[in-house]
Amino acid sequence: MHKVDLAKYNVRSDLIIEHDSSDYIKESYQDSNVKVDYIRLDKKNLLNKKEGDYITISFEDITDSSNFSKVLKVLNKELKRIFTLSKIENDAKCLIIGLGNKKSTPDALGSEVLQNIIVTRHLYEIGDVDFKYRNVAIFEPNVIGNTGIESKDLIFSVIKTIKPDFVITIDSLAALSLDRVQKTIQITNTGIEPGSGIGNARGEISKNTIGIPVIAIGVPTVVSSAVIVNDTLNYLLKKISYHKNNYQKDKLVSKYNINYLKEEKELSALEKREVLGLVGSLSEEEVKELIFEVLNPIGYNLIVTTKEIDYTIREFGKLIGDSLNEILHEKN
Amino acid sequence: MHKVDLAKYNVRSDLIIEHDSSDYIKESYQDSNVKVDYIRLDKKNLLNKKEGDYITISFEDITDSSNFSKVLKVLNKELKRIFTLSKIENDAKCLIIGLGNKKSTPDALGSEVLQNIIVTRHLYEIGDVDFKYRNVAIFEPNVIGNTGIESKDLIFSVIKTIKPDFVITIDSLAALSLDRVQKTIQITNTGIEPGSGIGNARGEISKNTIGIPVIAIGVPTVVSSAVIVNDTLNYLLKKISYHKNNYQKDKLVSKYNINYLKEEKELSALEKREVLGLVGSLSEEEVKELIFEVLNPIGYNLIVTTKEIDYTIREFGKLIGDSLNEILHEKN
Amino acid sequence: MHKVDLAKYNVRSDLIIEHDSSDYIKESYQDSNVKVDYIRLDKKNLLNKKEGDYITISFEDITDSSNFSKVLKVLNKELKRIFTLSKIENDAKCLIIGLGNKKSTPDALGSEVLQNIIVTRHLYEIGDVDFKYRNVAIFEPNVIGNTGIESKDLIFSVIKTIKPDFVITIDSLAALSLDRVQKTIQITNTGIEPGSGIGNARGEISKNTIGIPVIAIGVPTVVSSAVIVNDTLNYLLKKISYHKNNYQKDKLVSKYNINYLKEEKELSALEKREVLGLVGSLSEEEVKELIFEVLNPIGYNLIVTTKEIDYTIREFGKLIGDSLNEILHEKN
Amino acid sequence: MHKVDLAKYNVRSDLIIEHDSSDYIKESYQDSNVKVDYIRLDKKNLLNKKEGDYITISFEDITDSSNFSKVLKVLNKELKRIFTLSKIENDAKCLIIGLGNKKSTPDALGSEVLQNIIVTRHLYEIGDVDFKYRNVAIFEPNVIGNTGIESKDLIFSVIKTIKPDFVITIDSLAALSLDRVQKTIQITNTGIEPGSGIGNARGEISKNTIGIPVIAIGVPTVVSSAVIVNDTLNYLLKKISYHKNNYQKDKLVSKYNINYLKEEKELSALEKREVLGLVGSLSEEEVKELIFEVLNPIGYNLIVTTKEIDYTIREFGKLIGDSLNEILHEKN
Repeated sequence: MHKVDLAKYNVRSDLIIEHDSSDYIKESYQDSNVKVDYIRLDKKNLLNKKEGDYITISFEDITDSSNFSKVLKVLNKELKRIFTLSKIENDAKCLIIGLGNKKSTPDALGSEVLQNIIVTRHLYEIGDVDFKYRNVAIFEPNVIGNTGIESKDLIFSVIKTIKPDFVITIDSLAALSLDRVQKTIQITNTGIEPGSGIGNARGEISKNTIGIPVIAIGVPTVVSSAVIVNDTLNYLLKKISYHKNNYQKDKLVSKYNINYLKEEKELSALEKREVLGLVGSLSEEEVKELIFEVLNPIGYNLIVTTKEIDYTIREFGKLIGDSLNEILHEKN
Repeated sequence: MHKVDLAKYNVRSDLIIEHDSSDYIKESYQDSNVKVDYIRLDKKNLLNKKEGDYITISFEDITDSSNFSKVLKVLNKELKRIFTLSKIENDAKCLIIGLGNKKSTPDALGSEVLQNIIVTRHLYEIGDVDFKYRNVAIFEPNVIGNTGIESKDLIFSVIKTIKPDFVITIDSLAALSLDRVQKTIQITNTGIEPGSGIGNARGEISKNTIGIPVIAIGVPTVVSSAVIVNDTLNYLLKKISYHKNNYQKDKLVSKYNINYLKEEKELSALEKREVLGLVGSLSEEEVKELIFEVLNPIGYNLIVTTKEIDYTIREFGKLIGDSLNEILHEKN
Repeated sequence: MHKVDLAKYNVRSDLIIEHDSSDYIKESYQDSNVKVDYIRLDKKNLLNKKEGDYITISFEDITDSSNFSKVLKVLNKELKRIFTLSKIENDAKCLIIGLGNKKSTPDALGSEVLQNIIVTRHLYEIGDVDFKYRNVAIFEPNVIGNTGIESKDLIFSVIKTIKPDFVITIDSLAALSLDRVQKTIQITNTGIEPGSGIGNARGEISKNTIGIPVIAIGVPTVVSSAVIVNDTLNYLLKKISYHKNNYQKDKLVSKYNINYLKEEKELSALEKREVLGLVGSLSEEEVKELIFEVLNPIGYNLIVTTKEIDYTIREFGKLIGDSLNEILHEKN
Repeated sequence: MHKVDLAKYNVRSDLIIEHDSSDYIKESYQDSNVKVDYIRLDKKNLLNKKEGDYITISFEDITDSSNFSKVLKVLNKELKRIFTLSKIENDAKCLIIGLGNKKSTPDALGSEVLQNIIVTRHLYEIGDVDFKYRNVAIFEPNVIGNTGIESKDLIFSVIKTIKPDFVITIDSLAALSLDRVQKTIQITNTGIEPGSGIGNARGEISKNTIGIPVIAIGVPTVVSSAVIVNDTLNYLLKKISYHKNNYQKDKLVSKYNINYLKEEKELSALEKREVLGLVGSLSEEEVKELIFEVLNPIGYNLIVTTKEIDYTIREFGKLIGDSLNEILHEKN
């Protein structure tokens, strides 16, 4: 079957770590239970992704205050790394852009972070500033559905107007896997393409197009509905595989420990076919294409998120806000 | 296989119309493209649901202003009907309770409606009121995750304190089918059980427990993730059935017209088995149980909603608020 | 004594009707208890104000629903007038700008109105629009204290980017008199100078500077603290004058009817001096200058508003939003 | 002239330090530029105030981060003191009540603090709690103008329902002097009387009425308009006195240094009379009564606050929230 273009089907992952990127990992480390993967892609990478640095921080629930502190420490360190990689000077003027829609909770990360940023550009303008603070401005373009204006167009025009030395963007992302949702921060310097979702995208915001570094910070807060269906089918296969292979020890396994499923070896093609019939004989791409074909015509633009999303978004707003204030404003 | 208790699996529908209620429909009518089903259940109904009146209003997208007006007209009429059925006097004092969590967009309906209510109880207290207005107070208990207090406990205590003559509650609901989401208003006088989701529920708020009429107005804004998976599997089966039966005319059918799938006749047991293997041989309840077993251990409390939920919630807040103001305050 | 520049002392009125404008009234009328004054200033006007049309609508409390309807009717009529005066075509593309700070209640009018606007520009971009709606976009520049960026700079850059055919701005204003606060709407086509309050203003947003009509809608929501002091001193003088002249009938006058004070004739210079000493011998400008000198060094930027400001702002948001939707989108 | 009851004239101070309390100061100290006055009143105090402990913390602008830290340190210390004085056990269950109106910025302190509180009561209910956290619930009664219900009635009913061991209330206060606004925190254990401002107050929330300790934390965010007028008249007198006494060195004094006025000795009765005429011969109470008589009939309920109130409220929300989290949850 022909190669399936997942993006076309809105089964989109904004996370490099969910693409086939393991060959490009330049450094990995673990600090307490926080994991960091630093990926560097060159121009000729086979992922069809843009050249540059990608840092993925993976962790458990940050609404636990002890986890929060651990992630904050690592985030500070990795933001410093991307600043160095992107050659950002200590006195470079910063514009932070909060993307997304503050009225829709899972999409409100950008807005939430901006609430916590120490803004100083206007004090520089009048010379009334304690110079331990960097020159920082913020901008919230909102979404086209609310304003009638492409966020991209607003961003370009603000950059042209205030001429920062570099840009930081904050956005909610989509993941392919539930395991990543609210448990990952991705930092890149490859630029962004603020999606209107309406009509054709026109250009990206990146060093190539605006001539200054663009650092993007994102947290996956949703998965698409097709992901849920696909994940469920896969878990189904694994669960049935497990039951076949572990009939005897079945009783010993806690019903609520999903980990055994994650580690279970794949079923054979024949077994898959037995369990899921025709569907079991399709490749993962073909399944996703099928799911897309089925769900898309319903005319809904569905998102899947967690019930606690309001609290989580608030905590990520504090985490990233605190980290940016520390990194941006500690000029010595 | 044993009878499956769907509620147990959180594959919950708050809508009477999604239960096997067609035998109990007392009246149905259509006004423009707005449909009304009035169901009356007696004590011995076979649905295991509470005795009383259930009105379901079904419609298309209310963000279209012409639809909005049509639904508003019907909603006014049906609110008057439930007031009459519930024997609410013209000067009965009203307490409106906005359930849910205003910080989580799909759960913010209650809060959004309260924003639009004309409140007068305090003016009655000091005798300074234009008596064309009814005595109306509002209360927003918020959710236990935010306050640490069961919303039910707060509601009971407020009712005891201000002694209204009847109560109206507003809440976001969960549906079993995507077709219902944001396209249905349900009105009942059977009482509510504000779900804490934590621990065991303790009692309901209904005429039985508080001695005054309780009118509940709800709009489905989410479906559970298991619903999505199940819907997809069903559509898959129908799609494949369609392709088998319509091989010749395949090319003529618009890819984005899902309606043909809705009308397709069921596959035979054998065909199902062929397409979905073991899974195809399970009953719908068994599939949902399986999906629940698979998704639940992941430890997520997932909700599925639409991307435009912020705008829709705002419009429903206006619609229901406008209707309540008109019905409550037009005392002659 | 030299002529005092009130603006310098922050004893500012944004209302033409509070300047010495009575000679320039071109038309006045009363519709129910809503009064309209249409002032037209030419280039050589003696008020040192910009050339153009100024419409002042004066009314009583709009939180009364019957007043609300009366004001809405007049507002619709007067917006049509200013559209005609400004030569705005039926299909002219509109950008509405909500000025001010949504987080500070008295300054949130712009933001509140934008909440209620029907936005369509993005639908025009993709050709998916019911053409009874005009092409409308919105923008909220926020204030420099929050963003670090002059609102004026943001506005210029957005206008350059999306090229509307005309601009409407909404803002909270300052009045000189408590009688005007929340009881006046001013509409002009003379442009605005969004005040940063920081450093020197640099240019205005007007037809002169951007080449397209700029219609400004404003509602006074605050007075400066110097106004309160001055008003009090004036009322004091009048009260004492009244008591001197009405000793006999004193007991008959309701203590809470301030109107008698408003109509009382001025005290003589001698009487003023007797009551207020040196202060009584100063001109009004001199008193304001004195008050400014006294209050300003305290280092506070004080505003005086009403306790019910949150409710009033919400109602004005609905009033102006409803009116704009009707005028903008009724294309035939 | 008769003794004036200031409260009657709405020229209200919620701050004990602004009453004639200096004789009752039990301890005063200064930590950096943060000052603490601990006043203890017994039953027979001459201030006509309730028996108990009053702690006043005075400081400069907390939007400066270094001041913020200094005040936080002192606030922690003084909250511990009031806990000890009020005999609150380490495992006593706490209900925190956020008074005021979140939609009106100067009145939003209670709501803002609640946003930052770590709530745990529901976790205790299901036994799922890390026991280093105290049992804490929150409640926001809103104001009667929004809900139609006296906040006092709601508070009594919630306390009866969840039976905490002690209560903490947070509220915006009114001050008599601009110098106090946003520069003072008052902590008491004498109870509160949530003011409806409508009709007659009915009872207080205090240890006397509910049998458990009530700790009230307040920050003055407004002054009444009469205060502004009175302050201005006083400054006027001092300014004129200064000019009389310092004619020679006039030019040397910075126009924006108000401090010289604060220290200037009072004018004689004759001088006052000369400057302000009849008004200059009145006592302070008589002036305030006069101002009240003048301003009150206008029918406005005026408040005076600062332009930056939105930012200040947010910072106090963090300050008090952080302090409460530390004091409440550090159980060992």
